[in-house]
Amino acid sequence: MNNFNLYVPTRVLFGQGQIAGVAKQVPAGARVLVTYGGGSVLANGVMDQVRAALGERIVAEFGGIEPNPDYATLMRAVTLGREQGIDFVLAVGGGSVADGSKFIVAGIPYEGDPWDLLTGKGKVKTAVPLGVVLTLAATGSEMNSGAVISRRETGDKLFFGSEKVFPRFAVLDPSTLFSLPVRQTANGVVDAFVHTIEQYLTYPVNAKVQDRMAEGLLLTLIEEGPKLLENPSDYDARANVMWAATMALNGYLGAGVPQDWSTHMLGHEITAVHGLDHAQTLAIVLPAMLAARREPKRAKLLQYAERVWGLREGSEEARIDGAIAATRAFFERMGVPTQLSGHGIREPRLDAILAKLEAHGMTKLGEHGDVTLDTSRAVLEAAV
Amino acid sequence: MNNFNLYVPTRVLFGQGQIAGVAKQVPAGARVLVTYGGGSVLANGVMDQVRAALGERIVAEFGGIEPNPDYATLMRAVTLGREQGIDFVLAVGGGSVADGSKFIVAGIPYEGDPWDLLTGKGKVKTAVPLGVVLTLAATGSEMNSGAVISRRETGDKLFFGSEKVFPRFAVLDPSTLFSLPVRQTANGVVDAFVHTIEQYLTYPVNAKVQDRMAEGLLLTLIEEGPKLLENPSDYDARANVMWAATMALNGYLGAGVPQDWSTHMLGHEITAVHGLDHAQTLAIVLPAMLAARREPKRAKLLQYAERVWGLREGSEEARIDGAIAATRAFFERMGVPTQLSGHGIREPRLDAILAKLEAHGMTKLGEHGDVTLDTSRAVLEAAV
Repeated sequence: MNNFNLYVPTRVLFGQGQIAGVAKQVPAGARVLVTYGGGSVLANGVMDQVRAALGERIVAEFGGIEPNPDYATLMRAVTLGREQGIDFVLAVGGGSVADGSKFIVAGIPYEGDPWDLLTGKGKVKTAVPLGVVLTLAATGSEMNSGAVISRRETGDKLFFGSEKVFPRFAVLDPSTLFSLPVRQTANGVVDAFVHTIEQYLTYPVNAKVQDRMAEGLLLTLIEEGPKLLENPSDYDARANVMWAATMALNGYLGAGVPQDWSTHMLGHEITAVHGLDHAQTLAIVLPAMLAARREPKRAKLLQYAERVWGLREGSEEARIDGAIAATRAFFERMGVPTQLSGHGIREPRLDAILAKLEAHGMTKLGEHGDVTLDTSRAVLEAAV
Repeated sequence: MNNFNLYVPTRVLFGQGQIAGVAKQVPAGARVLVTYGGGSVLANGVMDQVRAALGERIVAEFGGIEPNPDYATLMRAVTLGREQGIDFVLAVGGGSVADGSKFIVAGIPYEGDPWDLLTGKGKVKTAVPLGVVLTLAATGSEMNSGAVISRRETGDKLFFGSEKVFPRFAVLDPSTLFSLPVRQTANGVVDAFVHTIEQYLTYPVNAKVQDRMAEGLLLTLIEEGPKLLENPSDYDARANVMWAATMALNGYLGAGVPQDWSTHMLGHEITAVHGLDHAQTLAIVLPAMLAARREPKRAKLLQYAERVWGLREGSEEARIDGAIAATRAFFERMGVPTQLSGHGIREPRLDAILAKLEAHGMTKLGEHGDVTLDTSRAVLEAAV
């Protein structure tokens, strides 16, 4: 096992009715900014529950945080937060609202150009406290300290992270997910699955607890994900998928093990060039990526084949092939295509995608740093 | 899945050489009280590393915290802490030192009789910050907010817990365990195993992530525990067992699921009456407890049989019998007897043990509250 430093101070309030618990978690005299996205939380009753929990405290609401939250949008919230003397931000939504709100809480007290927080020129020294009411199970942002922010004006998509922006609490009520569109439900399952894979399917370092945890999350997603397509209001399945998605990226899986993330990096550029959803790109890239890198990942692919897919018979090659095929079949079963052509993209702009990878310095990806642009090209070609 | 409130703010610094990290975790100007137990940390070099990390900061050391830490001992540390104006306590040792230090950090600022903190008459309103350098993998105290304190003067053994006494950080360096006596190593594996069982082997609530995590911890302990008997300096095995023991009682396993703890309660009284080590009592009670409660635990016993012990053939009864026998054999393989007679106790003082259970109100134990004194007697009789 590798050394690690693990710190996950977010309190999780999990289960039906837990939004009421916001009342105890937000300080009584707080001046609260409630942030949200496209407005589904206004329609499905979640915001009503939030307002009821906040009681007299609510000061301002800021909606319209888009998927892949935009810098310009978030800066308007920063300005509003400063004007209103906001001292608590409550994000109500999915990963984009949570990510965007992490930038907002860092931006409000930042002296200087907040853009510097994203380029690395500036550091988060202090942040307004943040809470999250989660309405989409996918990214894990509700229990980690990272965020991805886009700037459409310049075409940038940048990551920032700081322990100061950890949500103080996250409310996870699975029943708030009953009304999700099928596509978002399916995307969330794929996203959580690939988050787990990126921290698990590398090379062995004899980290048995982490391996078993990862396998447990994968099995849970495989068993429970498809149930949601049949019955979107299956509380237990929602609960299991929701908790799996949070556990997939709260730090515990990746502690003390190598990590990959090359599938994510390629996926980001596909989103930039072709506009596919984040999870849609992951479902396309992952099977091709695993096939292309079967040698460096051989030991873990065999472990994955056996423990997750029950493949114990046949040659090593057959078991690896079987595991990759099963992964692909699982995504397809969730209704998420695993080739670009599945989205009608028959002539993908591979050069544009690779140029973006190069421009972003993504030329040595993966747990061994051996995913060069050539490897990335081969993966993309296999994913057409 | 049941609702839950999960909060685990302890930072974990894991791995070889991490004790040096104490330098960054303890505030520069802190007046530090270093607490420890019987002195093995003075002999094995751990205290030297701690002193080096603390540099000029160290103010006082307090040794002699005994297994099942005693109120009178701890009160001497409280007095010392007050006299010295201590504002940080660093516990260097195993679960007893960690538990005892939780009482010390709550006791120092407490106005009133600190005994009230244990009886429930008083509440922890504030506590001196606490850090832990762990030198024994077993209890999980390094990453939770509970402690068990004994008062030999009155024969009491009481639990207290408060989020205020969560360690701010815990350093887990597996190489500090190389010099542990075999008995403590084996006890630690059994302790972590039974902690996991008490939160897993109850009745199904469809909590798939928690179930898979628990099974992963059990498999890790089964695979890695025996290696330590052969090679006490096996770093990877130490690391896996150490992390499993922490994960077994940091709150994640028990979140959203029923819990049992009846084996622990009976075990406590056996320790009180016959003086056996805590883990020794667990190894004696658990197999008999599972056998006695096979009906209410049937579904989970069958899951345990299949997923942990690979028992898929034969009748339900045969699989359950097999799982209980395998559990017993595992403890025996670790060198920990599973009958009282294994410790030379052929005529146990069952009446005294049951009288203590009754005196402590332990008459309706278990996840269903159906472990009466009659059940406890039957379990103890089966464990002779």
